[in-house]
Amino acid sequence: MRKIGIEDIDDIALGSSLLGSGGGGDPYMGRLEAIAAIKEHGPVTLLDVDEVPDEWTVAPICGVGAPSVSLEKGTNGIEYPKVRAMMERMLGKKLDAFLLSEAGGMNSMVPISAAARAGMPLINADGMGRAFPGIQQDTFSLNGVSTNPFVIADEKGNCTVLYTINNDWTEEIGREITSASGGQVTTLASPMTGKKMKTSVVVGTVDYAQKLGRIIRTASNQDNPEEYFLRESGAYRFFKGKIADVLRETREGFNFGKAVLEGIGEDKGSQAVVEFQNENIYAEVDGVIAATVPDLICMVDSATFVPVTTENLKYGKRVLVVALPCDPAWRTPGGLELAGPRWFGLDVDYRPLEECYAEHMARKAAQKKEA
Amino acid sequence: MRKIGIEDIDDIALGSSLLGSGGGGDPYMGRLEAIAAIKEHGPVTLLDVDEVPDEWTVAPICGVGAPSVSLEKGTNGIEYPKVRAMMERMLGKKLDAFLLSEAGGMNSMVPISAAARAGMPLINADGMGRAFPGIQQDTFSLNGVSTNPFVIADEKGNCTVLYTINNDWTEEIGREITSASGGQVTTLASPMTGKKMKTSVVVGTVDYAQKLGRIIRTASNQDNPEEYFLRESGAYRFFKGKIADVLRETREGFNFGKAVLEGIGEDKGSQAVVEFQNENIYAEVDGVIAATVPDLICMVDSATFVPVTTENLKYGKRVLVVALPCDPAWRTPGGLELAGPRWFGLDVDYRPLEECYAEHMARKAAQKKEA
Repeated sequence: MRKIGIEDIDDIALGSSLLGSGGGGDPYMGRLEAIAAIKEHGPVTLLDVDEVPDEWTVAPICGVGAPSVSLEKGTNGIEYPKVRAMMERMLGKKLDAFLLSEAGGMNSMVPISAAARAGMPLINADGMGRAFPGIQQDTFSLNGVSTNPFVIADEKGNCTVLYTINNDWTEEIGREITSASGGQVTTLASPMTGKKMKTSVVVGTVDYAQKLGRIIRTASNQDNPEEYFLRESGAYRFFKGKIADVLRETREGFNFGKAVLEGIGEDKGSQAVVEFQNENIYAEVDGVIAATVPDLICMVDSATFVPVTTENLKYGKRVLVVALPCDPAWRTPGGLELAGPRWFGLDVDYRPLEECYAEHMARKAAQKKEA
Repeated sequence: MRKIGIEDIDDIALGSSLLGSGGGGDPYMGRLEAIAAIKEHGPVTLLDVDEVPDEWTVAPICGVGAPSVSLEKGTNGIEYPKVRAMMERMLGKKLDAFLLSEAGGMNSMVPISAAARAGMPLINADGMGRAFPGIQQDTFSLNGVSTNPFVIADEKGNCTVLYTINNDWTEEIGREITSASGGQVTTLASPMTGKKMKTSVVVGTVDYAQKLGRIIRTASNQDNPEEYFLRESGAYRFFKGKIADVLRETREGFNFGKAVLEGIGEDKGSQAVVEFQNENIYAEVDGVIAATVPDLICMVDSATFVPVTTENLKYGKRVLVVALPCDPAWRTPGGLELAGPRWFGLDVDYRPLEECYAEHMARKAAQKKEA
């Protein structure tokens, strides 16, 4: 158990933003809200998974929508008590703690704000170990936890409760409600016992995010910042380039698109493409697959290593394309069915990032030898 | 108080279909369901409005969606107990009676099926005196009744509860849920006391529908069927023609479109156009407005006077274009704001059907004199 104070927020937001894999929302708004909430209500108690009593009732809270919308349309605070009151009404009992639904810039902050405002503890865990676009793409679904009741509130005051026959239908219907509400809502769903939670989460997310955030924040002070960032974070470096083109479309409640990058430095003459659906889902270098979902594909500023979320991709920006291995749960057959490349409509089989990276490095070595 | 038995169903369905103004759903499926429900559970008790105790809790039940979808995707029966159980759970008390949300082929039948299956009385009243496409376009809204909680169930088993800040938002969000569920759902909403109901409904809808149905059914046996149908129903006759063209589009959960008619008989050489959004919303003859919402515009078979719903418009069909005055509530400023031509995007002011008809007849007389 520890406390999350204002001094912890920046690193958690920064590191979560890397885990967000381009999605999970820009941390800017969420960070301001979390700081305001802690200022008003005091630090948040963070419980490790094994500190949570088995008989507790816990649930993940988050924002759902197109990240680009959340840049302009924030929460207004009424959503948190609203979703909590409705959840407790439907369950007929009190909630004991929140957890994170995903690791992402915004969705690491929403649970902190909500926990601070409710005076409720937060659990050091999430349901993805990264961010995914689909509501049902979490380790709760993977472990048989129903989203019911799925409670949605928007900033206007509308509140909806969904009881679906399976979590895919929650995505179908929940996404439409999100669009109708203007593209960004707050949800509280998938209530479960402390016991069920312990076997249905990615453990230690807040700690991991904070550690990554600290690495990013301090990298620039090192002798060799890039080398330090990569070594300490464990990120695999695939490409350094300048964003030459960004195609972007908001439809069906998602941000779709791709970025084309022209190589700089040691990658001069090469080209990379990164495709996204809220999150980065696919990366290739010179036409060869570098990484796909469910592994984490991230673009970070080439000088500061600050993650660049998909809604912040801009022509001319210099970035590193890096990747981090996903939680092992996503590499199981069930995990790949729920969040593998084919779920996203990509016509490729999943290959672990580490394999792709080894081949990538071998090709680079061969090219160097040739030249 | 009276009983609705199987022998009453056909006339109620037929007459409601006329009140549906082209919408409210094709009565075919609803009729079969209502007959099956009464066969299994016995006749339904129909209460007149003044027989309902003030302290009762009553609510309108209906189908929502694009009528063309309901031709292929019916209810499966699980919706009725589901929406009722959820409504009673949210209210913390039992419902005492259903009423009709609108008069329409399908939506006159859904409440009869639901009442039969629940063993609950039905109130002889509805919230429109016709059918309208918008969820919020009813006399309940007009009289300040909130749709909350708006309960939706689909035939798959998904169930949603909506608490909105106003009834316009119920339409916005409810419509998207309807689309996500495949375009056709069952709803139970706008719970109110018996007392509030008495000042918030169009009275006597089931009786009126049954009377109109009997007129249609027996017209063909009369010496002058058309004259009989018009006189007994009180419908204003604007045009007789053959459907020459139908444009139709299903989008945003609605059927949009228009029918072009070429005159036959005394209207030979003239042309009429009828536009619809689920319901007929506008009719013109030779470029002059004949009638608009909220008055009831109906096309009926020129030989049998059976109403032709918008999803059943077909090239070559011979129809009469007739109109009936709407309930006086819709001619008030509030009524016109909620269901007048401008709500539907038509750039015309509302004029009562009776005025348009007088001018129409004067023009016809002048033309006849000229010829």
